[in-house]
Amino acid sequence: MASTETKKDWRFKLHEIIYESNTRAGKAFDVGLLIAIFTSIIVVMLDSVESIHQQYGHTFKYVEWVYTALFTIEYTLRLVSIKRPWKYVFSPLGIIDLIALIPSYLSIFFIGAQSLLVFRALRLLRVFRIFKLSRFLTEINFLTVALKGSLRKISIFLLTVLSLTVILGSVMYLVEQRENGFSNIPESIYWAIVTITTVGYGDIAPVTATGKFVASIVMLIGYAIIAVPTGILTHDLATAARQKKELPEACPTCGREGHDGDATFCKFCGSALL
Amino acid sequence: MASTETKKDWRFKLHEIIYESNTRAGKAFDVGLLIAIFTSIIVVMLDSVESIHQQYGHTFKYVEWVYTALFTIEYTLRLVSIKRPWKYVFSPLGIIDLIALIPSYLSIFFIGAQSLLVFRALRLLRVFRIFKLSRFLTEINFLTVALKGSLRKISIFLLTVLSLTVILGSVMYLVEQRENGFSNIPESIYWAIVTITTVGYGDIAPVTATGKFVASIVMLIGYAIIAVPTGILTHDLATAARQKKELPEACPTCGREGHDGDATFCKFCGSALL
Amino acid sequence: MASTETKKDWRFKLHEIIYESNTRAGKAFDVGLLIAIFTSIIVVMLDSVESIHQQYGHTFKYVEWVYTALFTIEYTLRLVSIKRPWKYVFSPLGIIDLIALIPSYLSIFFIGAQSLLVFRALRLLRVFRIFKLSRFLTEINFLTVALKGSLRKISIFLLTVLSLTVILGSVMYLVEQRENGFSNIPESIYWAIVTITTVGYGDIAPVTATGKFVASIVMLIGYAIIAVPTGILTHDLATAARQKKELPEACPTCGREGHDGDATFCKFCGSALL
Amino acid sequence: MASTETKKDWRFKLHEIIYESNTRAGKAFDVGLLIAIFTSIIVVMLDSVESIHQQYGHTFKYVEWVYTALFTIEYTLRLVSIKRPWKYVFSPLGIIDLIALIPSYLSIFFIGAQSLLVFRALRLLRVFRIFKLSRFLTEINFLTVALKGSLRKISIFLLTVLSLTVILGSVMYLVEQRENGFSNIPESIYWAIVTITTVGYGDIAPVTATGKFVASIVMLIGYAIIAVPTGILTHDLATAARQKKELPEACPTCGREGHDGDATFCKFCGSALL
Repeated sequence: MASTETKKDWRFKLHEIIYESNTRAGKAFDVGLLIAIFTSIIVVMLDSVESIHQQYGHTFKYVEWVYTALFTIEYTLRLVSIKRPWKYVFSPLGIIDLIALIPSYLSIFFIGAQSLLVFRALRLLRVFRIFKLSRFLTEINFLTVALKGSLRKISIFLLTVLSLTVILGSVMYLVEQRENGFSNIPESIYWAIVTITTVGYGDIAPVTATGKFVASIVMLIGYAIIAVPTGILTHDLATAARQKKELPEACPTCGREGHDGDATFCKFCGSALL
Repeated sequence: MASTETKKDWRFKLHEIIYESNTRAGKAFDVGLLIAIFTSIIVVMLDSVESIHQQYGHTFKYVEWVYTALFTIEYTLRLVSIKRPWKYVFSPLGIIDLIALIPSYLSIFFIGAQSLLVFRALRLLRVFRIFKLSRFLTEINFLTVALKGSLRKISIFLLTVLSLTVILGSVMYLVEQRENGFSNIPESIYWAIVTITTVGYGDIAPVTATGKFVASIVMLIGYAIIAVPTGILTHDLATAARQKKELPEACPTCGREGHDGDATFCKFCGSALL
Repeated sequence: MASTETKKDWRFKLHEIIYESNTRAGKAFDVGLLIAIFTSIIVVMLDSVESIHQQYGHTFKYVEWVYTALFTIEYTLRLVSIKRPWKYVFSPLGIIDLIALIPSYLSIFFIGAQSLLVFRALRLLRVFRIFKLSRFLTEINFLTVALKGSLRKISIFLLTVLSLTVILGSVMYLVEQRENGFSNIPESIYWAIVTITTVGYGDIAPVTATGKFVASIVMLIGYAIIAVPTGILTHDLATAARQKKELPEACPTCGREGHDGDATFCKFCGSALL
Repeated sequence: MASTETKKDWRFKLHEIIYESNTRAGKAFDVGLLIAIFTSIIVVMLDSVESIHQQYGHTFKYVEWVYTALFTIEYTLRLVSIKRPWKYVFSPLGIIDLIALIPSYLSIFFIGAQSLLVFRALRLLRVFRIFKLSRFLTEINFLTVALKGSLRKISIFLLTVLSLTVILGSVMYLVEQRENGFSNIPESIYWAIVTITTVGYGDIAPVTATGKFVASIVMLIGYAIIAVPTGILTHDLATAARQKKELPEACPTCGREGHDGDATFCKFCGSALL
């Protein structure tokens, strides 16, 4: 019985270090992990540069093995320290961690799989967990609440923009007649997106007078409707400002977040929120 | 008399399925229609790609006939199920439906008319009807009210931008002296629009020192005045937020929308709003 | 004495037609003038296109003479119908009218001066007077009040952006070392403006790794600070919304605008506002 | 004792002229300094243009010596007129002044160091001190307060954008497979920044269909999230509007700013704020 107690205790402490960030050890773990992620991405980046690869490629290979070992240990600890490991495996962060881990092994066994290591960059998203320790907490919460409120409206906006690009791209395909880069409708829609978002690469640009006229309309539309998402978000920020509340911690059992401030039990797995 | 009753009943049910979206059948019809529109556009898109056309062009032709049949039946049902069909024919959505339908027939009889099929993309605008079934209703209404309020102010803004581009484009025509792509005033105005909207293709760019100086002013103007439509819309969203009200349904007789929430009769044709 | 009365009366009526726009004749005059300005600009535009010039150049010359006559008569009537003509001549709109008129005469006597006709485009700014007749009045006033309030803040913003472009442009000149288009500091500053305003022609683009790094910082700055003018204007629109008031009419004596709503005498020339 | 009094008096007056701007002499000094900075930058700029350098390079050398002398005198006076000179030397403005001064001497002794003169452009930031004399004071304070409040939120936003560009850039590196300019991951990240900020040089642009699809997503993300910093700032401007207060003057002892309006002693060095 004492052994169960100790085991529970040991697991609880590990959970606190790995999943929570309000203890000293928890903060240290999170910061250390972020540094490991960040430096490992830098290594992958540098290794992708031909000239650097030829000089240090061998060293990078050994460094990569160290990172693989580190991240494997971290993943194992994550599985061990919670009561229901499968919940973590299929949680968004868990899936990202796995996607980031698999290419490390693939690159050992298969040649060419090395470039898949870039998916490790996805782990950068963990940076937003680290913020939760710092004084940025209030701002993060504030932005999260506002963005959640805006999400639906902004997706309607993006859908309208997409419909517009399909229509305007198709019109340009008719106008420029398969020439000047507008060789098919998907290509023309790509041009319409490049133009309406005001990116404007210039790799495809209208040549005929009519084409330039239509393009001018597309540009003015893009210039005017940029106001829509901005207006929506500003409005929702003002609304969110009146409804600020703290973001809850992760559940010690399943590792999932998003609990209400007054919750005593995890709403996903029912276990107590310590 | 019973027959008239039945006929009226039959027509009423059809109206509810095709024009309304608050019944189960109505929702199914709307979703099905949207899928048909969406897939038919994908087919037109793929068919425009030379390599795909050469392989599957024949199959696409048969698929196109199926779509033409489907949309013709849909159009006929729309005409049959309302009391005054001409009102639908000349309503905005009715005109779009007809424009989308005609090229299907033209492409059968005339070679080359096939590319006009892209106008079917206009039917994508129906997607906004479908939203009315979902929980997006409140957001759509909110945005519609705000955009209506901003329309006048944003058109004044666009008119100012257009006047500016005419003036600045003309100045650049003088400065760059028919060279470097500024070969005539309309071309220079096109450049001014590309620049002031911050699209910046780079197909026409100033080469002389004076030209670059004028261009810098145009860019800074464009960068600063983007604030205007955004400011307008944000302000109007805040105003709209205080005046939220539900958008009414379509009239069963003429199919037109835009009735006040408390309306009992259609304001366009006078028949009762069921 | 009767003659003076009549003369005053005649001048007063002419003033009302030409300078005011709340009578029927005044509206007609303003609309007619705008059409004349608009079509005359279209003619100058078309004449600048080489191919059109070769075909219709001769016709355009005669049309140009008609416009010159029309605008000369208009300018004379403006001088005659107000008590102190010099006040009109040196008012902003008066200067624009003169600048737009002079090239018409220069182009008759000097070859090449024809291209100066583009300055007629400046008269397009009169379009904002015409709006005063329509229902756009409230919106115009609203925007004017808000923009006046934002002017100072937005000029501070533009000054900051300009300082930044000088500093960042200079840094890029050092980094890219006179190569890749960054041949001197003014050129590098032009690049910095193109980049920070997110226009991005691509005529000058960094090639070295360090250059690309600095450029990335410039882009992110430009992307983030676009928020500043927008935020300012949105805020001032909200302030202006609480202070809406009607814009006053033009003074019948000196033709200048900007009188307070409760003014009885012109604040520029002291004569009564009829 | 009288001598000490006089010395203190003399130093106090000099401090008022050089560091403060609410006396006549102080304003004149600030304006004069700004003109000197501005013209000296123009000289460095013109000297960087090859053709101008060959003609006036010799004259510019002498002019440069005059500026070096002037700025050296100014720097010495700044050191002399405050009680604790080292505090000024290590203050932000003091460091900028030193960075701007050193290249003047380096360019005399070392060939090639001349191009470092561009760092003098940093002194342009002094322009914001000059505004404090004018009626722009209220606007500057207002913007400063709002920007300070937004700083944290906007840095979170920029960090998110950077994480996104690393992820999306890596994906594009995989998709376009070392071709079409996406030759390594840092290069691909540079492309992602160019695209997400809607700059769009077009020096690197996707060529494959998949690449164009991913690029379209990047553009739409960039177009939609531009709303975030704008929304944040607009919200904080509204908050700042309710908290307007005057910015305090510089400390006569250490020259540092940022004291509260009701402060009687400098919060950095403890000496009295006169």
